[in-house]
Order: sequence, then C-alpha cells, then structure tokens
Amino acid sequence: MKKVGVALLGLGTVGGGTYKILTKNRDDIKKNYGVDLEIRHILEKDMSKVKALGANPDIVSCDINNILKDPEIKIVAEFFGGIEPAKSFLVQCLLAGKSIVTANKEMFSQYWHELESAAKKGKAGVYFEASCVGGVPVIRTLTESMQGNNIKCIMGIVNGTTNYILSKMADEGLEYETVLKEAQKLGYAEANPTADVDGYDSMYKLSILSSLAFHTKVPIDKIYREGISNISKLDIEYGKKFGYTLKLLAIGKKENGKIEARVHPAFIPSDHPLAAVKESFNAVHIVGDNVGDIMLYGRGAGDLPTGSAIVSDIVFASLQSKHKYSSFKNNTDKVSDRGFNKDFQCEYYMRLTVKDVPGVIASISAKLAKFKISINSIQQKVEGDKASVIFMLHRTSESSVKKAVEAIKEVDTVYSVDAIIRVEE
Amino acid sequence: MKKVGVALLGLGTVGGGTYKILTKNRDDIKKNYGVDLEIRHILEKDMSKVKALGANPDIVSCDINNILKDPEIKIVAEFFGGIEPAKSFLVQCLLAGKSIVTANKEMFSQYWHELESAAKKGKAGVYFEASCVGGVPVIRTLTESMQGNNIKCIMGIVNGTTNYILSKMADEGLEYETVLKEAQKLGYAEANPTADVDGYDSMYKLSILSSLAFHTKVPIDKIYREGISNISKLDIEYGKKFGYTLKLLAIGKKENGKIEARVHPAFIPSDHPLAAVKESFNAVHIVGDNVGDIMLYGRGAGDLPTGSAIVSDIVFASLQSKHKYSSFKNNTDKVSDRGFNKDFQCEYYMRLTVKDVPGVIASISAKLAKFKISINSIQQKVEGDKASVIFMLHRTSESSVKKAVEAIKEVDTVYSVDAIIRVEE
Repeated sequence: MKKVGVALLGLGTVGGGTYKILTKNRDDIKKNYGVDLEIRHILEKDMSKVKALGANPDIVSCDINNILKDPEIKIVAEFFGGIEPAKSFLVQCLLAGKSIVTANKEMFSQYWHELESAAKKGKAGVYFEASCVGGVPVIRTLTESMQGNNIKCIMGIVNGTTNYILSKMADEGLEYETVLKEAQKLGYAEANPTADVDGYDSMYKLSILSSLAFHTKVPIDKIYREGISNISKLDIEYGKKFGYTLKLLAIGKKENGKIEARVHPAFIPSDHPLAAVKESFNAVHIVGDNVGDIMLYGRGAGDLPTGSAIVSDIVFASLQSKHKYSSFKNNTDKVSDRGFNKDFQCEYYMRLTVKDVPGVIASISAKLAKFKISINSIQQKVEGDKASVIFMLHRTSESSVKKAVEAIKEVDTVYSVDAIIRVEE
Repeated sequence: MKKVGVALLGLGTVGGGTYKILTKNRDDIKKNYGVDLEIRHILEKDMSKVKALGANPDIVSCDINNILKDPEIKIVAEFFGGIEPAKSFLVQCLLAGKSIVTANKEMFSQYWHELESAAKKGKAGVYFEASCVGGVPVIRTLTESMQGNNIKCIMGIVNGTTNYILSKMADEGLEYETVLKEAQKLGYAEANPTADVDGYDSMYKLSILSSLAFHTKVPIDKIYREGISNISKLDIEYGKKFGYTLKLLAIGKKENGKIEARVHPAFIPSDHPLAAVKESFNAVHIVGDNVGDIMLYGRGAGDLPTGSAIVSDIVFASLQSKHKYSSFKNNTDKVSDRGFNKDFQCEYYMRLTVKDVPGVIASISAKLAKFKISINSIQQKVEGDKASVIFMLHRTSESSVKKAVEAIKEVDTVYSVDAIIRVEE
C-alpha cells in the first residue's frame, strides 16, 4: 500500500479537526482509497493542544526544518492563518517537493501566484479546498466539474459569522450590536470581529472562487467590499415587507467580457435558494451557460467540516500522478484594471428621512431622474412631522446612485439618506 | 496541445446537448484546460438529428467499428439509453482502450462490474457523472471530496418528473392523474411514465450513489422501491397541516454496519432543505461523520445540464494519466443479502376511514400496541357517519407496520386503510 507522510503546521481548531480525522479515519482511508496517511510531524508550540488531542509529543516541534529534512513527508497541511510565517514555510516545503494543503484564505488569496510558482519549481501540488466554505466542495466543483461551462455568475454566503448575525437580526428583530455581542459570547464571532463583519474574509474567498470561475486572477484589490456593521433592523424589516431577505453576499459576475467582484450586504428575493441559508451555514450559487443554476450548501467552518476538506485535499493530492496548476495564465500579483468593471449595476433600496411636506417626493424623484435612475416603487411612513421614505430603484450604476445621493442630500426637505442597499435578483 | 478524439453514441436530447457544448465551448476548453476535444465519429441513424445540429454527415454512421478502428478516438460518450446495444458497444470500446462516459443509469447501475472489468483489461476509464442528477456534480463530490468521511446518509430528490408532479399537486391542489396528463402534454413526463413515476429511474440512481457513498456495491435488487401513483392530494394536504412536504426520495443509510436503500414517497419537515426543491429541480443531501450536512442542488435533466456533466467527464477523463476504479472490492453482480437491512425503520403517517362510533380509536390503538408501535398524534375528521383518522406513528419497522395494518383491517369499525406514508426527519 502507498504510504504518504503528512505534516501539520499548527493544531488550532482546523488543525485539531484534521488530526482527529486522520487518526480516526486512517483505516477507512486505507481501505477505500488505497493510501496510508501517516502524520509524521506537527509544528506547534502550545503543548496543551498536543496533549488534549493525545498526539505523540515526540513528533511535535517548532522547527520547520524537521519537516523539510524528512523525505517521507510528501504533504504539508497549514493551519497557522495570517501571512507569515505560513507563506514562507509553505514556499520552502514546495521547493522541497512537498505538496501543500491550506485553509488560509487570507494568505492564499494574496500569494497564490508565489506558491504556484514555487510548486512548479518543486514539481509539487497546491490544494486549497478548505480555504473556501469549509467542507462544501466548491473548489473541486469549480476545478473538476464545470469544464463544460462558461460561468456567468458565482454568488455566495461564504461567511458564517455574518450570516448568523443577519439571520438572528431578521428572526428576532434585534439590532446589530446586540447580536454581535451575543455571537461573541457564544464564540461565533471573534473579540475583534473586523475580518468577518467588515467583509474581509468573504473578500479573500471571493478572490479565490471568482479566479477559478472566470479563469482569470481576480485579486482582492479588484473587489468592492462593504460590511454589515451599518445594517439596521429597520431595513431588514422593510425588506421583508417587499419580499426580500438580507444577506452578506460575495458576488462575481462576468458580463460582456468584463468581471465584477463585490462583497456587500444585499437584498435577495425571499424565495431565492440562498435566502433559506440560515445561521452559520454557507452556500454558493453558480450559474453556468450550460449547466444552468446549481447550488452547494453546508457548514462553512468548524474543526471537522473544514478538516474534512483538508483531508479530502490530502487524499486527492496523494493520488495525483501529476499535479495540475491554475487554469489561468496571468496568475501574478500584477493584474491590470482592464477586464474588470468597478462601476457595476444593481437595483437599489434607498431609505431616507424627510420633512413631511408636499413636494418632497417630487424633489427627490427629480434628482433621481437627473441621473437617469428610474423608480420601481415608493413607500412612505409618516411619524410626526417627519416621514421615512423607501425608494426601490430600477437597475442603475453605482456611480449614478452615488451622485444622486449627493444631490438628494442637498434637498432642503431631506434630513438624511439613511440606507442604500443593493438588490440582487 | 493535447488533442483527444471523441465519439458520440447517439444524438438524442443529451447527445445533442453534448454535441452543442463540445462545438460551442471547444476553444474555451482548449484555453482553460489545455485539451482539444475533437468529435471524430457519431453513431446515429436518424439523419434529421444530424442535420438539425449542423453536424458533418461524413463522420456519422451506424457502425461501431468506425469508432473501434480509429486510434485517435480516446473517449466514447454513450447516449443510447437502455441495456443493449449500449453495454456491448461500451465493453468493446473499453477493451480497445477507449475510456467511456455515460449518462445511462439503467445500464450502468446493472453492468458497472462488467464495464469496470473490461476497463481494467483495456487500461481505460469509466465515467458516469451524467448518470445521476444531470449537471449537479454529485458523483465527483462522492469520489473526490468525501474521502475524510464515513457517509451515514445520502438522501435525494433525483427524478425531475416526479418532483414536478408532486410540486404541482401540492401547490395547486390537483390530483395525480390530472398533473400527470399535463406533464405528458408539456413533455415533462413520457407517454409511458413508468420509469419515472414508479421509481425505477430513482432506484438506478440510488444504486450508483449509495454504492459510492458506502464503498459497497448496492445492487438494485437490494433497494426497496415504491412510486407515487397512489398518492392522493388529500394526503399532501393533511401532511402540510402537520408541517410536512411530500417528496419522492431516494434514501441510502448506513447504521450499525448495515445498509438500507429505498425509494418511496416520504414526508419531510417543510423546513428541510430538500422541501424547498421545487418543480423539475433535483437535490442530494449527504451526511458525513465529519463534514456534517451538505446539499447539492440543480437541474437533474435536460440537454445542456446533462451535457455539461458529460463534457466535464470527457475533460476529466482526458486529463487523467491513470484511471481510477471503484473504491469497493466487491464490484460484482453477485452481492449477498448480508450487510443490507431490508426491514428498515421509519416514522409513519397512516390514514384510515372508520365508522364514527365510540371505541374505534381504542380498537386501532390496541392493534398498534400489539405490535409495539407507539402513537405520536391522532387527528380525526368526521364526515357523516364516517371519519377520516390520521395516526402519526413513532419510529418502528416496516414489518411491524405491515402486520399492524393487516390486523387493523380486521377491525369491524375500520372501513379502509387508505394511506401509509413514511416520514423522514
């Protein structure tokens, strides 16, 4: 039987999950896939983690050289997170001919080209199923199942923390800050929640997913990013009345040869398959020119779900006789703006607070008309001498909306523009 | 660039879709996957199909030898359907070293072992993504993404015709016969609908899917099969009131080392992800010990969705340096009953018509108690001197329910047992 040595960099949540699966499922993997995966070294300084997992302390160290010098180690799985030392260690492993498996979207989305270039030199492989949407096989689907399609759109709920927060806000009518605090208490959100709630995590994943979908590197600086911290429960409630559910979406589209990539909160019709994705579940919706709509759904995080993706990559890598690399030629860190559309188009939801006097709707409508934005519907709710007005706007561009909002703010009967939320059909 | 010759056996719906994709997307596939797929021969006797697609008539014939003798043809995709001549032709191709790609679940589920044995002799590959759930990459997910899991359950809506019929019955309150006729008129159901409505199509697919999920051949004779033709709109309506949606499910489970495989109509909770799968869409829900719940969703049929799966397999096959075979050792046509549990357990919905007299519920309950079946809830609806009674039964075995039903039929205040429907949570 083929025996393959594996090293683990880090024994955190996902590293620990991977350790558990490789240990518990070792015999099944031998029987079903004909490969014996042996953990030969672990980099971890926190020995309490080693002890908690019952790992052999003799194979634990803090020195990457212990891995580099062992010719039996063919695959190195990384769980450090962050850029360094993860990237440098993985480059060294690749140059030494060891394939790598990573869950590190932050590093991978920015240094894919560097890792791939080292991999080619070392004739090793680069695997990253676990970097996006945990155990859901979205990377493998994009690389091994969509070959007969030009993908037009990939749209996903790829961050569990924000989906948990938005679901809770919608279901229990709570404000963002309240739910965030609860999520932090339950361990669903980090003490510093920026990476999740401001959309960075989704942006890293979208960079990887849309690069694969469109066979073109989509670097993070080409991605529009907006988080959920300004979302009010009021907008979620209004949206519900219009038949919409609010989600933080990662969206990649290719239209007329141009790619647009963006992460932001968006209303989707409440009967859209993504609207039913609740709590910390994730899902990715893909539209191909031939396959039509498909959706993949599951747990986007957690020790065992993400560990499942890591182990899948380890088995997959260990059975390749020749590693494949990214299907796009420009896998470099220098990608020009050509080919990207940053002034994308959407429908919009706009909520304003205005003075309750005749003519205010006319004034606002005139400003919208000036920027060629047409109105789908208007809803007004009077409270004292003020009114909340919601405009649902037909498809228009970001730049037009921005200009219109500036012009509307100048109308003297308008107190404030409280929310602008994009609508995806 | 690697050039790979392809032959198509048949130009029906899926064959035609495959032809279209291979022609339209040929340059994209070259660019993105580095392989030039050239259609070198087509077996088709109906020249009107050839003409409609604009295919070159010079490469069309009715003689398999034209394919067998062309060394440039490396991959043969089959769209004949049915057992013969599909199977014999494919065996000949495999022995000649040509890999095969098929959408033919009826043939493949029953002759997998024979094809695989020929494939090993010819050092060729056997690919069948298109045999189950059209363009949804469920086969690739099972073979390439679940390696770190013991799958506990696979449960799917894998037949579009029956899902269309049941969705229509539920949404519009129509009877089975009415919807079936409409579906036949619209081309969603065949003139002879048996393969779909009696669950044969789902059974073939379940045989393939559960064999992969459990790494054990699950032949069709180990699968319990029941169709939807006895479903009444009344039961769909009652189910709705209890919070259930009725679907034709293909279910494979592994519990205590025993496999159960069954195709039948079942109630699932209306908030189950599968309950939202409407019309002709398909979905498969997989539960792994590590990944937890995942679901794949999309179009299960149609020329381009299924063609997408065929082309994916052709590209995948053409890039393998060594073909893999099924991950189970007993891929044979002789599989013993050991390892299978045919007396599976479920919750049940039971509807009866009884005489509206005191004591009838007591008599029925006593019969259920005799077979150790406990009752979850009872609902009664009186109409004249008759009453409709619905029993929701706790988890029990098929054999107990069957015996109980026989005993209940003997109760003189019971007119009829009108429906027994399994309930899956």
